[in-house]
Amino acid sequence: MTDMHDLTRKLQNDNGTKIVLLVADGLGGLPLEPGGNTELESARTPNLDELARKGTLGLSIPVKPGITPGSGPGHLGLFGYDPLKYQIGRGVLEALGIDFELGPDDVAIRGNFCTLDAAGNISDRRAGRISSETGVPLCEKLNRIKIPGVEVFVRHVKEYRMVIVFRGPGLGGDVDDTDPQQTGVPPLAPVARTPGSQKTVEVAQEFLKQARTLLANDAPANFLTMRGIDKQPEIPTFKEVYGLRAGAIAVYPMYRGLARLVSMDVLDAGQTLGDQTARLKAAWNDYDFFFIHFKYTDSTGEDGNFDAKVERIEELDAAIPQITALNPDVLIVTGDHSTPSKMRSHSWHPVPTLLAADNCRSDDCTAFGERDCLRGGLGQFEAKYLMPMALAHAGRLDKFGA
Amino acid sequence: MTDMHDLTRKLQNDNGTKIVLLVADGLGGLPLEPGGNTELESARTPNLDELARKGTLGLSIPVKPGITPGSGPGHLGLFGYDPLKYQIGRGVLEALGIDFELGPDDVAIRGNFCTLDAAGNISDRRAGRISSETGVPLCEKLNRIKIPGVEVFVRHVKEYRMVIVFRGPGLGGDVDDTDPQQTGVPPLAPVARTPGSQKTVEVAQEFLKQARTLLANDAPANFLTMRGIDKQPEIPTFKEVYGLRAGAIAVYPMYRGLARLVSMDVLDAGQTLGDQTARLKAAWNDYDFFFIHFKYTDSTGEDGNFDAKVERIEELDAAIPQITALNPDVLIVTGDHSTPSKMRSHSWHPVPTLLAADNCRSDDCTAFGERDCLRGGLGQFEAKYLMPMALAHAGRLDKFGA
Repeated sequence: MTDMHDLTRKLQNDNGTKIVLLVADGLGGLPLEPGGNTELESARTPNLDELARKGTLGLSIPVKPGITPGSGPGHLGLFGYDPLKYQIGRGVLEALGIDFELGPDDVAIRGNFCTLDAAGNISDRRAGRISSETGVPLCEKLNRIKIPGVEVFVRHVKEYRMVIVFRGPGLGGDVDDTDPQQTGVPPLAPVARTPGSQKTVEVAQEFLKQARTLLANDAPANFLTMRGIDKQPEIPTFKEVYGLRAGAIAVYPMYRGLARLVSMDVLDAGQTLGDQTARLKAAWNDYDFFFIHFKYTDSTGEDGNFDAKVERIEELDAAIPQITALNPDVLIVTGDHSTPSKMRSHSWHPVPTLLAADNCRSDDCTAFGERDCLRGGLGQFEAKYLMPMALAHAGRLDKFGA
Repeated sequence: MTDMHDLTRKLQNDNGTKIVLLVADGLGGLPLEPGGNTELESARTPNLDELARKGTLGLSIPVKPGITPGSGPGHLGLFGYDPLKYQIGRGVLEALGIDFELGPDDVAIRGNFCTLDAAGNISDRRAGRISSETGVPLCEKLNRIKIPGVEVFVRHVKEYRMVIVFRGPGLGGDVDDTDPQQTGVPPLAPVARTPGSQKTVEVAQEFLKQARTLLANDAPANFLTMRGIDKQPEIPTFKEVYGLRAGAIAVYPMYRGLARLVSMDVLDAGQTLGDQTARLKAAWNDYDFFFIHFKYTDSTGEDGNFDAKVERIEELDAAIPQITALNPDVLIVTGDHSTPSKMRSHSWHPVPTLLAADNCRSDDCTAFGERDCLRGGLGQFEAKYLMPMALAHAGRLDKFGA
């Protein structure tokens, strides 16, 4: 099957139009009771509703029906990259989440402190969930490990979690986890799944050997396991596949990292939505495409706080006029997945999507909400088709075939 | 992924039913103002509306979301051929557009007269846009070029444009354009992208050598460039993939050519819709499937004439009774793409589609228009699935599996 990027590469034209993709993380929701309103339907959103009347609505399926995505596949889909083709390892995602700038030769690993008993068996896979206060100096200690021929970075993430990065030529990312997923047994030795990753195994063995000595007296965090050992996938750049100069305005590191994966420029986002829209305005002439990320619709959903999610949606709505004042040719408001507060987690439910542009076909929707989106003109579509639709409405795709 | 044709080949049965595919070119439209009516929604279409009440509506996505098709991919999709799998070169399409009957060994080329200055550089890529009056005799002159081992055809298209066809064994179609896409430089030499096209390069070189001598005194049209050098794709026949004897009734050469590509019989269509429906009636017993093409919904859209497009849709509606009087088992009315008069061009917007048959599932649509189609029973579907739906409603597909 043809990759959509083969089409967008061939058909793209740079006509100077501007596209804004506003992602409200976890936007989609559920009613608390059958037949009730979702968070988005409950929120008072006069600005989004006005856009809904002018534009076209639909529901975005992040990966495939029934599949609940993490933030990585959720965003790659919105960026138009097939999330089943470009898979991001856990170690890489962890590195992105702390703003670590991964290079193409880097192997990223999620490390977990663990407790070994006297026999060398794991007695606690999370080292008694040590505090960050305890974890930070231990990571600093591990960061001093030297291995000939490679650079080693160890960065604390949270509590018992860390990111380990090996940087150097010839390091493959096909290495199994050393976490045995059970206690009472020793950690597994790192094993390469492909010959190209043998060097990574040797580096990991040396790292683990030195770590065992360094941490010997640090129980309960007297050792670590390695998970999600991987390199970042080779992802074609946004500029190459779409011809767009793209700027990312995201407060949280994870989303800056995901934008960096597709080679967007990461702009200073400040701390608030007001900071973000101010940055948008300031950078307006420098980019063709802006990705703006709003986190709190997801975090309130994860908290199970329906009312707080409604409030955050209303906060988002209030920021819309700052964006429309810039007259983007295409403005999209959507989410990377649903996070119904009723479920306190990401879900597979299709995500409300609004596309506003001059040449939208009317669909008689009058408000931005799940029920309206269900009968919207975009229909239900896989997220990876959103970027081609954005480009089309921006006049940035030439005709296919004569 | 399974090709639908693998299924239709296996499941087809010839039960003597009749299918009519009425293509109103560029049928889909846009309202002039947000919330307004499209051309189709504005038109008074009592006959189509009656069919809409009996049948099932939907929206056809010609290629993929956001992709605007030319006539070639637009029609291949409607004929059930994946337009991304079967791509038609510009030279081939140009040949189809003048009713040139291409054979499987033919290489077709779009030629443009150009002007060379004394140094041999291109000073005008379109030879001052010479009139057709000037172009015709120059093409007749080029048509006399002889090259050993191949037949050469040169046919005038319009103004500075022509079609060149080389016919002979061993000619490949993988040759780059000779048009440098700029002035002040000489034309490029033809270059083969694959070894199998080396002979084509040699033939093209000889053709260009002779042409340069023949046209030496014909400034501003004292040379030509070659573009879209290609053979027609190998396309399985309609009869083979569907078991249908198909007749095409199209007034314009391009659409007769596209029908010929899938091995439909091209019937005499006359000049008007009345001629076309009379031909349909006369040929009714000779075919299982009829493709009727109506051009003017596209051309009025391209002209940006909303009212004229509305009138053309009403003209189409008035012809419906002549078709339904023949009692086709399946009647489909759709377009190969949208051509909103607001945009004066083809667009990516999904195309209103109506399928009427005895075993349609009711969808409570009451009129043939974009809004009704959006909530129609066929949903939004890729055009390539229309033919399997037509066959199914005609009872021409057996059960898959036991």
